[in-house]
Amino acid sequence: MSAASTADVPVRPIAIIGGTGPAGMGLALRWARAGETIIIGSRDPLRAQQAAAAVLLKAGPQAKISGTENATACAAADILMLTVPFEGQASLLKQLKPAMTPGSILIDATVPLAAGVGGRASRTLGVWQGSAAEQAAEIVPEEVSVVAAFHNLSAELLYGDLPLDCDVIVCSDDPDAAQLTSDLAKKIPGVRAIFGGKLENARIVEQITALLIGLNFRHKGHAGIRITGLPPGAYR
Amino acid sequence: MSAASTADVPVRPIAIIGGTGPAGMGLALRWARAGETIIIGSRDPLRAQQAAAAVLLKAGPQAKISGTENATACAAADILMLTVPFEGQASLLKQLKPAMTPGSILIDATVPLAAGVGGRASRTLGVWQGSAAEQAAEIVPEEVSVVAAFHNLSAELLYGDLPLDCDVIVCSDDPDAAQLTSDLAKKIPGVRAIFGGKLENARIVEQITALLIGLNFRHKGHAGIRITGLPPGAYR
Repeated sequence: MSAASTADVPVRPIAIIGGTGPAGMGLALRWARAGETIIIGSRDPLRAQQAAAAVLLKAGPQAKISGTENATACAAADILMLTVPFEGQASLLKQLKPAMTPGSILIDATVPLAAGVGGRASRTLGVWQGSAAEQAAEIVPEEVSVVAAFHNLSAELLYGDLPLDCDVIVCSDDPDAAQLTSDLAKKIPGVRAIFGGKLENARIVEQITALLIGLNFRHKGHAGIRITGLPPGAYR
Repeated sequence: MSAASTADVPVRPIAIIGGTGPAGMGLALRWARAGETIIIGSRDPLRAQQAAAAVLLKAGPQAKISGTENATACAAADILMLTVPFEGQASLLKQLKPAMTPGSILIDATVPLAAGVGGRASRTLGVWQGSAAEQAAEIVPEEVSVVAAFHNLSAELLYGDLPLDCDVIVCSDDPDAAQLTSDLAKKIPGVRAIFGGKLENARIVEQITALLIGLNFRHKGHAGIRITGLPPGAYR
């Protein structure tokens, strides 16, 4: 590292693809508050700008946040956070593939809820590849690392002001991408990141979201999970 | 309820079927300490008696615990706790079916780990019925209620002296059986019970164990889970 001032550290924006929903706006808010540069992407650039304006209002005028069309957001960043419903995931990724910079990291929070095909949000669909994240990995260019994370955070709590009470389990075949994702998770107050192993383990983490949705229906809450019993070094 | 002394309350023993492994002995220990009457079952009655003697030594002489052959244990109790490896579950249940009293509750903690067929303990097998618990429900007599619970407790911590730091997610189609199971879960220090909905949801809870096993391998711990964000009434 050089002795340069912080102004010389290159800005590495985070593009939140399909980021106008509650989860996308919640992550945008928390990371904008932590000083990250955020680009909210949407199919509709106007909706992206409106979402960015709403987050800016909550995060304060110092927040670095903009909104644009998904492919433009994708091309402008090498950290891509995907927050779309499962039924839109594959087609969106195929469409964005040419806009992805080699060396990018795609963080996937997609959960294959049966609600996407008219079923229940407390049930999941079987994904041929094993998980939505592994489906994503099959679609994106080889030079893009896929990380599965952020499935189990309550979108409503994320887009609020209080610290969360939830751990983020991070799965990836690329340790560096997992570490970067863990660092981003830790920027959300109350969140701890735990490396959950290879991307294939995303199939379990994705299922947990359906369980939490069922618990929320049944008990009227905003359920999250904490992993207990690991040594302090396991929580990155 | 009558005004009779506690001596008149009928004893309702818990048979721990296949209970000579660490999970079975751990549950036996915790419930014996809580004053429950425990019958450890095993294919080999001598092994069952040895396990009961070992638990008695840890629990203290006031503990009500015995050991016998699985079918005898099954016939002597209407609360049946099943703690066997997945690869032995179906055949054992078929064998025990005639010994089950109508109205019994079978609490199943089976996890379909791939280790059972030579794979990894951090991976699971697909079960045609959706989960090991639903497989159990298909085998037992109709008059036996199946509950899925206790998958995610560390066997090593259970068979110890410290309070646990873990929630038990209880899934069943029979609310009364779920309540009884929750009451038993709460008798383990540090454990909270949460109703997780129908038995079909066991498929998710069972998978979580494989994730926790992976975390234990990776981070050298005794991982458990806590569910956060639910109102106090959700924790039974």
